[in-house]
Amino acid sequence: MKIADAKVIVTCPGRNFVTLKIVTDEGISGVGDATLNGRELAVAAYLNDHVIPVLLGRDPTRIEDTWQYLYRGAYWRRGPVTMSAIAAVDTALWDIKGKLAGLPVYQLLGGRARDGVTVYGHANGETVDEAMAEVARYVELGYRAVRVQTGVPGLATTYGVTRERGALAYEPADSAIPSESVWSTRRYLAHVPTVFASARAEFGPDIQLLHDVHHRLTPIEAARLGRELEPYGLTWLEDPVPAELQEGFRLIRQHTTTPLAVGEVFNTIWDCHQLITEQLIDYIRTTVVHAGGITHLRRIFDLASLYHVRSGSHGATDLSPVCMAAALHVDIAIPNFGLQEYMRHTPETDAVFPHGYRFADGYLYPSDEPGLGVDIDEELAALYPYRPASLPVNRLEDGTVHNW
Amino acid sequence: MKIADAKVIVTCPGRNFVTLKIVTDEGISGVGDATLNGRELAVAAYLNDHVIPVLLGRDPTRIEDTWQYLYRGAYWRRGPVTMSAIAAVDTALWDIKGKLAGLPVYQLLGGRARDGVTVYGHANGETVDEAMAEVARYVELGYRAVRVQTGVPGLATTYGVTRERGALAYEPADSAIPSESVWSTRRYLAHVPTVFASARAEFGPDIQLLHDVHHRLTPIEAARLGRELEPYGLTWLEDPVPAELQEGFRLIRQHTTTPLAVGEVFNTIWDCHQLITEQLIDYIRTTVVHAGGITHLRRIFDLASLYHVRSGSHGATDLSPVCMAAALHVDIAIPNFGLQEYMRHTPETDAVFPHGYRFADGYLYPSDEPGLGVDIDEELAALYPYRPASLPVNRLEDGTVHNW
Amino acid sequence: MKIADAKVIVTCPGRNFVTLKIVTDEGISGVGDATLNGRELAVAAYLNDHVIPVLLGRDPTRIEDTWQYLYRGAYWRRGPVTMSAIAAVDTALWDIKGKLAGLPVYQLLGGRARDGVTVYGHANGETVDEAMAEVARYVELGYRAVRVQTGVPGLATTYGVTRERGALAYEPADSAIPSESVWSTRRYLAHVPTVFASARAEFGPDIQLLHDVHHRLTPIEAARLGRELEPYGLTWLEDPVPAELQEGFRLIRQHTTTPLAVGEVFNTIWDCHQLITEQLIDYIRTTVVHAGGITHLRRIFDLASLYHVRSGSHGATDLSPVCMAAALHVDIAIPNFGLQEYMRHTPETDAVFPHGYRFADGYLYPSDEPGLGVDIDEELAALYPYRPASLPVNRLEDGTVHNW
Amino acid sequence: MKIADAKVIVTCPGRNFVTLKIVTDEGISGVGDATLNGRELAVAAYLNDHVIPVLLGRDPTRIEDTWQYLYRGAYWRRGPVTMSAIAAVDTALWDIKGKLAGLPVYQLLGGRARDGVTVYGHANGETVDEAMAEVARYVELGYRAVRVQTGVPGLATTYGVTRERGALAYEPADSAIPSESVWSTRRYLAHVPTVFASARAEFGPDIQLLHDVHHRLTPIEAARLGRELEPYGLTWLEDPVPAELQEGFRLIRQHTTTPLAVGEVFNTIWDCHQLITEQLIDYIRTTVVHAGGITHLRRIFDLASLYHVRSGSHGATDLSPVCMAAALHVDIAIPNFGLQEYMRHTPETDAVFPHGYRFADGYLYPSDEPGLGVDIDEELAALYPYRPASLPVNRLEDGTVHNW
Repeated sequence: MKIADAKVIVTCPGRNFVTLKIVTDEGISGVGDATLNGRELAVAAYLNDHVIPVLLGRDPTRIEDTWQYLYRGAYWRRGPVTMSAIAAVDTALWDIKGKLAGLPVYQLLGGRARDGVTVYGHANGETVDEAMAEVARYVELGYRAVRVQTGVPGLATTYGVTRERGALAYEPADSAIPSESVWSTRRYLAHVPTVFASARAEFGPDIQLLHDVHHRLTPIEAARLGRELEPYGLTWLEDPVPAELQEGFRLIRQHTTTPLAVGEVFNTIWDCHQLITEQLIDYIRTTVVHAGGITHLRRIFDLASLYHVRSGSHGATDLSPVCMAAALHVDIAIPNFGLQEYMRHTPETDAVFPHGYRFADGYLYPSDEPGLGVDIDEELAALYPYRPASLPVNRLEDGTVHNW
Repeated sequence: MKIADAKVIVTCPGRNFVTLKIVTDEGISGVGDATLNGRELAVAAYLNDHVIPVLLGRDPTRIEDTWQYLYRGAYWRRGPVTMSAIAAVDTALWDIKGKLAGLPVYQLLGGRARDGVTVYGHANGETVDEAMAEVARYVELGYRAVRVQTGVPGLATTYGVTRERGALAYEPADSAIPSESVWSTRRYLAHVPTVFASARAEFGPDIQLLHDVHHRLTPIEAARLGRELEPYGLTWLEDPVPAELQEGFRLIRQHTTTPLAVGEVFNTIWDCHQLITEQLIDYIRTTVVHAGGITHLRRIFDLASLYHVRSGSHGATDLSPVCMAAALHVDIAIPNFGLQEYMRHTPETDAVFPHGYRFADGYLYPSDEPGLGVDIDEELAALYPYRPASLPVNRLEDGTVHNW
Repeated sequence: MKIADAKVIVTCPGRNFVTLKIVTDEGISGVGDATLNGRELAVAAYLNDHVIPVLLGRDPTRIEDTWQYLYRGAYWRRGPVTMSAIAAVDTALWDIKGKLAGLPVYQLLGGRARDGVTVYGHANGETVDEAMAEVARYVELGYRAVRVQTGVPGLATTYGVTRERGALAYEPADSAIPSESVWSTRRYLAHVPTVFASARAEFGPDIQLLHDVHHRLTPIEAARLGRELEPYGLTWLEDPVPAELQEGFRLIRQHTTTPLAVGEVFNTIWDCHQLITEQLIDYIRTTVVHAGGITHLRRIFDLASLYHVRSGSHGATDLSPVCMAAALHVDIAIPNFGLQEYMRHTPETDAVFPHGYRFADGYLYPSDEPGLGVDIDEELAALYPYRPASLPVNRLEDGTVHNW
Repeated sequence: MKIADAKVIVTCPGRNFVTLKIVTDEGISGVGDATLNGRELAVAAYLNDHVIPVLLGRDPTRIEDTWQYLYRGAYWRRGPVTMSAIAAVDTALWDIKGKLAGLPVYQLLGGRARDGVTVYGHANGETVDEAMAEVARYVELGYRAVRVQTGVPGLATTYGVTRERGALAYEPADSAIPSESVWSTRRYLAHVPTVFASARAEFGPDIQLLHDVHHRLTPIEAARLGRELEPYGLTWLEDPVPAELQEGFRLIRQHTTTPLAVGEVFNTIWDCHQLITEQLIDYIRTTVVHAGGITHLRRIFDLASLYHVRSGSHGATDLSPVCMAAALHVDIAIPNFGLQEYMRHTPETDAVFPHGYRFADGYLYPSDEPGLGVDIDEELAALYPYRPASLPVNRLEDGTVHNW
């Protein structure tokens, strides 16, 4: 069997998505997500100009060989653009392999290791009260775990807080040219513990609570925040500091037992192998699309399992339903699953990407169709042309570029 | 689908083998090797009395769940008996999964990552000349790599040296009650470098040469031997010291660049994770049957790949053709394959275990049939009842029990 | 003198026990416990089929030689089945040696290093009140140390909590096919500190309190629990996390001064040498039966003594009176004894294993008869045939296999 | 002042180059190299679609602010595509800044720290004799340092060895679809020491000799090679192993004093900070174009200077004259300069990129014109449209994908 065709489909049914579709000479097709929020067309070019020409004619069943060919053969390894492109190929080939086998992909990964995939939703509000109302809404929907973000007094905008109430969606990539926010660590640190004091007072000890710092602290600041949040028993504190300096987490770890989650921006196992092997984190949040596909992501999770680190995959709306489908096959199969982020896509997105996974009672369930159980409706996709959209930029009060 | 039947078959077509056969309610069967040389009936009892009762009625596609159930559920983890039993179940379930998918198992593991599996054979002789004649024979057969063992002047018997010339087989488990050998490290160390000086002089730089110390040295002795062998460019020096003390390999490593291979006696990733993560070895020789099956062995090899460690799986005749078949599916699929040991089974064994893998030009090739491509002929197996056979015991010249 | 006979006796006077009995040509007999809860018949087969044949004719006084012969000669080292079998031989040979000497075994180990062996009992209850009533009962019985386990609100069953009130016995191996429990770390962590707050409030600072986590947390979760329990001055927190990754305990150790105890599932010194040499624990809980017998256990405790680690041997009812007798001889003789677990056997068990050790005022005292001072009544034993019984399996709320 | 225009120019005057040209509202222009060999159009798209829109209107003098804006603002950090795009912007802004100051860029970096930039050339030959003739030619040209690569007996092709004799150029990206080579570590290791024995015998101790392993060994193999090359006093052994696992270099370092150089594939300081702070290397070979521009490269070299590590920048023909010009300004200004690689471009390339740097007597000298002293002739560039060209893929003899 050979790969007969491969194409990149860029569509914007509410937000931009890049999808790779591979078709074999026997007519079997597979899809892979290649979306890199705000840098979509660089991945599209990487695939169109440099990857697709070498895919044509290859044996689609040789997934490992193809992964190594693209990773080592590129010479220039790692990074978000490269690894998202490789991920798209890998995901599509697993989709094809599942169809060849007549089995859902999770069966090829070892079968179901649990009944359903526990997800967490995003509750956010300008005020603490608004955020609490959102938490209540998720609890009603059956969620067992909720991430809580609120506005910070004195700051005009805050990460994770949507402007539209009741949207169940939050899209930070809100402008062709990045919008700019202003950040104050001092104000933030003073505020956050009060949010979780309210949440525990209102919702009791059972609901799992999470919070995303979004890379904005230094390790010693994160250590302080982690310790101050200890009375509220968070499931995790996410992305407390930028993580290029993996050893930087040692300092946080010395000071607090609040569990730590990191990894949505990681692209390979090398971005986190020290975080894992030194047990500096508790949840590794790498995704199928940005971390080299199912083949590589599984290796990250396997390394993590040796060191008591569980998965906690990123699952914001910037990942298409193709990525979510693939993530669920991995989630249901690995021994050390933790939590899966879940933000619902718009109806337009759901229509462009017909899929068989479903939500019930706080769990997501992968499709039982052969392959990934997700497809792209190319005609519908063509109705939504690409619209440039960028993530915001963050500055300190003195104008210094900070981490967004 | 459910597991409808499972049974343990003990047979001795030349040597003892323990095989687990699992049959589903849809009539699909799978086989797994459970042979533990010299301790066969303990594994058979572990399976018959404690594992098979919990397998009946389980979903055979839930391989990871079953692995965790048997590993964690036993409460008493690790060790050769436990992990061989788990391995047999895991291997049989992968065989079934491949048949369900209509694909050879290597396809479920990511597809072919290479064309064939490079193997090495065993050349041995009482004298150096006899051993060189054996090397020549392997070279003629197309082998690219040969392990060389010879008698040691002054010692009556030596590990790895068969008494029958030209046998192509060497069976150390030669007696119901263990035979006893006498060992002298001093004589051994003085002799081995001369063997490899001869081999390089006679066969030139191209042939890959290996040597097995079989756990008989201390680290500083192994360091000396490794350094003295450096001029002969060995592919590996195997099992230089007993490896319970993983950090003990640091001392060898400081002194020599001769590559090291270890692991045929390991049962889990915990027996080698320090050897791997500290890069104290170059080849990890864990096997499907003794290291928890395909599911666990793949995790060991994946960890190894991060640290420049390649696979070098044990493949002596104490592993049945079922294990060899499974090993070849793993070997062909992983990115960091190194070498596969290959000792040919007797014709009787080959008849009891009909299999589709084949040797050509120095390579072994896994079968392309669905599943593992190996089976057990139960009627034939029944003709060869179990015969107690033990590995030898080794003593120093003063009578101290030493490592065999 | 030679070993003239050896046999394995499996009996179930309330629960299953495996006992090895060795008889010399001079008619001296010794007994060793070989019970591996839920995997009994694998050890029995290991002994019957692979060990007893090599014991016959050996000199029973060569205990060290026999230990090395079985450990190194098996080739496949370590693990619960292997080490329990070796332990049984070793224990029986020490029993014989004591009888040969006309001395209790503790005399051969160096004599009494203390007057009595401090033990701890198990107080458990569905509710905190029930558990407190049990603690009171142990205090009345003279116990100085009590392990406290309670039900967890929202969980149907909990480790260590018997369904029969006032039983003084708790047998988790309650079903031929493992029963399945559901676990919630969140609920557990929220509850445990309240138990010990009650215990200290009710019983004051003098009573030694212990708690067994039974492997169910990750290191950071254990760190949190350890810190939260600090006000209650526990003697130890037991088995906080699965311990294959010994370095994993570093993280717990950074965060809390609550003493840690580990080791009932360990089989050799290699399972804990890093825990000990890095001072990651305070009590090592290895047992005679699962850790290679008196010969090997003494070596573990000797290493521990270098690093301020004390003994804290496992002593649940799954160890027969033979093991308890042997443990007491070790306990009374070593310099770094800490605590001995003590769960009372059923009257039927006590009758099958007549023994001379006795409880008084919170202490156990080994027998002063020659040897171990324990025997097996074979005729009585024969009245209680083996009944399959398995330890439970534990699952998370989503169905993932967890540690029981 | 504002950025009024920015454009990406892709041209192929012998090989492909991607160049960013930024023009201010005052008509000052600057150029930056964005060439990523074999992945050119992904960087072009990254710049065109995602970077240029945010550049327009920005103050071109705020180089640091722009660097942070692009690095942190992208959210998805690191990797070759991202960092090459950022490098192009940064380089162009330094060019503009120099023109604004009326000074060559090296003056803004601290001024000349040396008289000239020592370079090394590439001598290569199928045979050792051919390679020696090439070395002689470089010596005649005044070079003080020469990298030597030769064919390996038994291998059809070898890295670094051009097919055209006397070309002074070697272009590995030789085919739209990657050509495939076959590699044998065994043959290579047996051959290389003989090359340097010849070179020292023929050219004496003065000439600096270098060798590039091009990522093809494991650490222990590299350790062996480094040790065997010690008698020949190499200036450096380059890229001995793939370097994602920075700690992997510890093993090489234990065994040999042959200096090590690494880094042409690195994109940020995080790719080498452990290599540097643990002193695992001697030369850091990061480039302006792939490591984030002058701003970031200078920080890498500054860190290196703390740890006795010198610069040794990559300078193959895949970097355009724009990158070479920028590299020379850095080289002449930093305190810890080591060596600069120098492969001459084709006359067509030199014509498309008119530049003022010059070679004399083994040194390169940066231009003294304001800015970088290099430009792009857009009309000429337009005559050479992009031609797809890929770097080769390397396989082991058994077909496994290896590092090229």
